[in-house]
Amino acid sequence: MEFGIAFKGDLDHNRMLAISRQVEAGGFDYIWFFDSHIIWSDPYTQIAASMQHTERVRYGPLVTNPKVRDWSVAASIFATLNRMSGGRMDMAIGRGDSSMRVMGKKPATLATLIECVEAIRTMTSGETYSYNGSPNPVFMDWTEGYELPVWIAAYGPKALKAAGENGDGLIIQLAEPGLCQWFTEQAKAAGEATGRDMSNYRALACSPVFVGDVETGIKQTSWFPAVVGNHVADIVEKYGKDTDLVPESLTNFIETRQGKGADEGYDYRKHAVKESDNLYYVNNAVTESFCIVGPPEVHIERIEKLKAAGVTQFTIYLTQGNEEQIVAEYADKVIPHFK
Amino acid sequence: MEFGIAFKGDLDHNRMLAISRQVEAGGFDYIWFFDSHIIWSDPYTQIAASMQHTERVRYGPLVTNPKVRDWSVAASIFATLNRMSGGRMDMAIGRGDSSMRVMGKKPATLATLIECVEAIRTMTSGETYSYNGSPNPVFMDWTEGYELPVWIAAYGPKALKAAGENGDGLIIQLAEPGLCQWFTEQAKAAGEATGRDMSNYRALACSPVFVGDVETGIKQTSWFPAVVGNHVADIVEKYGKDTDLVPESLTNFIETRQGKGADEGYDYRKHAVKESDNLYYVNNAVTESFCIVGPPEVHIERIEKLKAAGVTQFTIYLTQGNEEQIVAEYADKVIPHFK
Amino acid sequence: MEFGIAFKGDLDHNRMLAISRQVEAGGFDYIWFFDSHIIWSDPYTQIAASMQHTERVRYGPLVTNPKVRDWSVAASIFATLNRMSGGRMDMAIGRGDSSMRVMGKKPATLATLIECVEAIRTMTSGETYSYNGSPNPVFMDWTEGYELPVWIAAYGPKALKAAGENGDGLIIQLAEPGLCQWFTEQAKAAGEATGRDMSNYRALACSPVFVGDVETGIKQTSWFPAVVGNHVADIVEKYGKDTDLVPESLTNFIETRQGKGADEGYDYRKHAVKESDNLYYVNNAVTESFCIVGPPEVHIERIEKLKAAGVTQFTIYLTQGNEEQIVAEYADKVIPHFK
Amino acid sequence: MEFGIAFKGDLDHNRMLAISRQVEAGGFDYIWFFDSHIIWSDPYTQIAASMQHTERVRYGPLVTNPKVRDWSVAASIFATLNRMSGGRMDMAIGRGDSSMRVMGKKPATLATLIECVEAIRTMTSGETYSYNGSPNPVFMDWTEGYELPVWIAAYGPKALKAAGENGDGLIIQLAEPGLCQWFTEQAKAAGEATGRDMSNYRALACSPVFVGDVETGIKQTSWFPAVVGNHVADIVEKYGKDTDLVPESLTNFIETRQGKGADEGYDYRKHAVKESDNLYYVNNAVTESFCIVGPPEVHIERIEKLKAAGVTQFTIYLTQGNEEQIVAEYADKVIPHFK
Repeated sequence: MEFGIAFKGDLDHNRMLAISRQVEAGGFDYIWFFDSHIIWSDPYTQIAASMQHTERVRYGPLVTNPKVRDWSVAASIFATLNRMSGGRMDMAIGRGDSSMRVMGKKPATLATLIECVEAIRTMTSGETYSYNGSPNPVFMDWTEGYELPVWIAAYGPKALKAAGENGDGLIIQLAEPGLCQWFTEQAKAAGEATGRDMSNYRALACSPVFVGDVETGIKQTSWFPAVVGNHVADIVEKYGKDTDLVPESLTNFIETRQGKGADEGYDYRKHAVKESDNLYYVNNAVTESFCIVGPPEVHIERIEKLKAAGVTQFTIYLTQGNEEQIVAEYADKVIPHFK
Repeated sequence: MEFGIAFKGDLDHNRMLAISRQVEAGGFDYIWFFDSHIIWSDPYTQIAASMQHTERVRYGPLVTNPKVRDWSVAASIFATLNRMSGGRMDMAIGRGDSSMRVMGKKPATLATLIECVEAIRTMTSGETYSYNGSPNPVFMDWTEGYELPVWIAAYGPKALKAAGENGDGLIIQLAEPGLCQWFTEQAKAAGEATGRDMSNYRALACSPVFVGDVETGIKQTSWFPAVVGNHVADIVEKYGKDTDLVPESLTNFIETRQGKGADEGYDYRKHAVKESDNLYYVNNAVTESFCIVGPPEVHIERIEKLKAAGVTQFTIYLTQGNEEQIVAEYADKVIPHFK
Repeated sequence: MEFGIAFKGDLDHNRMLAISRQVEAGGFDYIWFFDSHIIWSDPYTQIAASMQHTERVRYGPLVTNPKVRDWSVAASIFATLNRMSGGRMDMAIGRGDSSMRVMGKKPATLATLIECVEAIRTMTSGETYSYNGSPNPVFMDWTEGYELPVWIAAYGPKALKAAGENGDGLIIQLAEPGLCQWFTEQAKAAGEATGRDMSNYRALACSPVFVGDVETGIKQTSWFPAVVGNHVADIVEKYGKDTDLVPESLTNFIETRQGKGADEGYDYRKHAVKESDNLYYVNNAVTESFCIVGPPEVHIERIEKLKAAGVTQFTIYLTQGNEEQIVAEYADKVIPHFK
Repeated sequence: MEFGIAFKGDLDHNRMLAISRQVEAGGFDYIWFFDSHIIWSDPYTQIAASMQHTERVRYGPLVTNPKVRDWSVAASIFATLNRMSGGRMDMAIGRGDSSMRVMGKKPATLATLIECVEAIRTMTSGETYSYNGSPNPVFMDWTEGYELPVWIAAYGPKALKAAGENGDGLIIQLAEPGLCQWFTEQAKAAGEATGRDMSNYRALACSPVFVGDVETGIKQTSWFPAVVGNHVADIVEKYGKDTDLVPESLTNFIETRQGKGADEGYDYRKHAVKESDNLYYVNNAVTESFCIVGPPEVHIERIEKLKAAGVTQFTIYLTQGNEEQIVAEYADKVIPHFK
């Protein structure tokens, strides 16, 4: 089992560096940064800064998208970060959410996402790639040839198929084992259908956590189902009626939620903010199932279940305060159980 | 007099960091990075890495352009780098040269350049800005409000006018005092014509240098007139006939050069490469006047002349080997003369 | 009110560096290292390493002694650390405890302590000093002339007198306000008696802390009264009978403790070890009064009392686990109350 | 062939750090610091600082001695530096020269040197050691068990015997191949006589160098024969008459030198200072043979000869200016020839 943390990118710079060091010393494997340049800041310059303070952990955006940067610009960033870190970059990518919507733009199509993955992977490795965004074919001969592992974020069946066919791993933005298993199985099946060997396929489940009493934990993390809950509900309602993998709490949530469309009434300016009005359609059971809150043994038990569900990495959204304590608790009491 | 160095971005990462520290310890004021993401690498992640090793020097791209990144993405990068360095970022910008041409794209118009300067300056400072690239107005409330000094690269009269009217400083890519004076005066006059107080206007002259014997120096630096010479020749031929500021060596160069258009036969893949075929239209006198080559006293004498010509910063293109020696020679023997 | 932390010197190196950064980002003022080279490790090389990761916090040993290093060697270390940090070194010194006793050596006399303070202060500042340990007078012309603030650790009346007459501050190894006031007043009175202006005299109280429930906190910190309790009891029993500053819990402790001499049955190899047999003569009330254990508001309340008692710095012995959490709790909830 | 540099310890701290990074990036293997705490500063805290900026190069004092620090204090320093660097410490030790003499103290006897090597090696590795300086046996259970390679500095036959019998390597303070061979053979023969396998025995030759014209080089480095010349002359005069390994220049030097005893008229306050009066007994031929001065090919040729003479590491005394240039020249032009 791998462990990661994800920075939103809004922490004091020096605290971010201190936590980066704490994370590596504490046995974590990945440091991710949200890629939403207007709401929170630029992830790649912060990755570069953090890399100066670590030797082992890997990095990546969680998640980038095909529309925010020209693909050659993105590939150049990944290759530069690989060169400065001895090849410690991954890319996680989705169709585009907050970084696009806050500008009034729409997410990319799945076809664009798939082509973008190919483009960035190819150019980052130093091979030539031709795409619509550049009249001339692009090649960057200084890249040192590192291969870029690509994780694709997906909930719905078409995106999961794309993730299984094109990615090295799947990003699942919640820590509910039943849904993780349902999503991961769809991605793997799609990959296998194309003849790929999926035995090394990876699945990353990510969510905020709170180590301590459940009540405080729910208060700290209920912003998260507000961010992802409606998306998930749509998917489950549409495609998950025939499966018994969907947990009861979620079924209940789907029936009682007040917002109807994924984005109805949603304020992207308050994306992932604890006290946001966006919280109105969340209940405690959903929060507890999407996040991990409680004493260390609850975290261990849940991550064991995620592992059994096919998840290979659990990443903590380090976004709602108590950052150093959460990292310390995982380093002291949770990670040692899995290593 | 300020002093800077410019990295091309192709040095071994650890050497780049060592030189960054040497540069700050040696009394320099600025570290610039070329912004040409395909030919050399991403400048901003390298700036972020270098910043982890300095406390005082300022940073910037030399030069970026309006077409390589969405303006909100660029502003987010500048604001993030400001936040992590306590406000040590500048921006130098031109219409776009190698980073665009290598993709088969054209430089931006001057009008676009002027709007881009306003856009990035505004968004970086935390103010709201509306532009064509974003359906929604953009504001980034986390920026900490640093003001971004903007330098504009220019040779021709319209660009110089734009630089004087819109910039905090002018970038001149050569170290020939007569031309520097001619360019700087045009920019300042344009600014004054709009009623701006130009008393703090800055002018940066940049070129490769060699400290040692002249013959070796010319061999090391003759790639540079090949990069900028034809552009300059075009300008001088077109607009400079009535002035006696143009040096004789340049007049001679203009008459004898073989290439006729600025880019005729020019291979951007070998931009700024020492042994490039692009060198064919350069002679030694031009190299000596565009660059600074010779023992330390030659450098001191030239920089005195640049200062008298209105130049406020001399920046070394640290691009052709002997990097540590050049920095050491300037730190030991040249900079102390001016501080 | 200043805040500090003290490392025992046994933490994983990378965690120590991460915590150093966390401490500075969290608003602390001092990082101290125990100076007991056999039991725990060398403090000065760790200070040098930590300094590479901070810009503002000050450093020092807590506490060194006159007998562990030749005075010129010690002065050279302090001057070197000052030079590399822009003058961020202090010295805290006592007669010598664990670092001497574990070798079978005895603490220094007070007279030696007083001369040592003068010697190290003089040589560190770059002045010439003659002492028995060196046939030739010693001067180090490279020291840059920083003045070294000297804190003296004391419990007993003679040591307190020496601390008040010779030190810039007093080190008190417990966080009990009544005793802190009693000790500080003695030191200040001694200083005033010699005509010194004691208005800037400093007093540092240090102890382990636990932020959380009291029961766990007592388990985590009861090693501490075992280390210092008997020394204090001796002093109180001998000199404190006429004062009402001694808290009742301590009076009770003095009457019921089983060990009779300060060191009877004490194993210096288990100095400051949580599960040590040395704990036998400690009760909970003494632990609560010597340390600070409980939720954040208990810490704030106690430190307010320490402040009222004349204490100018509270330093946390970061020695018994939960290091990052303790620093985070103080940074988030305690320090902001005092700044 | 290994390469090292030695810092005198008087450089600006930030330049020292920049050069440390330059040295590692340039392919060197060792960074040494002079250990003379009064004349120059404390080496171990500077080693700790430098280690924060490197990952691969090894460190050590060049040279320490048995009388400057209690052996347990020294062992604690070495073990602490090993722990923070993953075991990258060596020790080079001699009988004690400048750091003792400047205090008016005498060097240690060879017997003390031999016992000290055993003591520090044993305690650093975590084993128990009993010695006169500590009534109790000393053991440091936190040391992580790294073995400490020990180099012994020697010129004379008894010291060379001790170095061969007790050291892992020999330190020779000059770069004259004939003398290096003569010294190394004596050390190896002594080791072999005790039955040791000397096939991995190491020999380090060190001297200042100058890359450039010979005349300037001699001016820059003639302080060095002044430091070591008389010692060498004494040895050669006394023991080397029957060997043809002693170079003619040295024989001549011996006959014409004015000082007669090793230290007659020698001012230790001006130890290793370029413009010192101590230079009076040096001639150019001796400087050229003890140091390496000239263009890169002279350095390559000399180091080839040193290698043939049994030398396994050449270390540059980085002490007389032009530090970054010298490191750059070796990184670019000399080291690649040997790797």
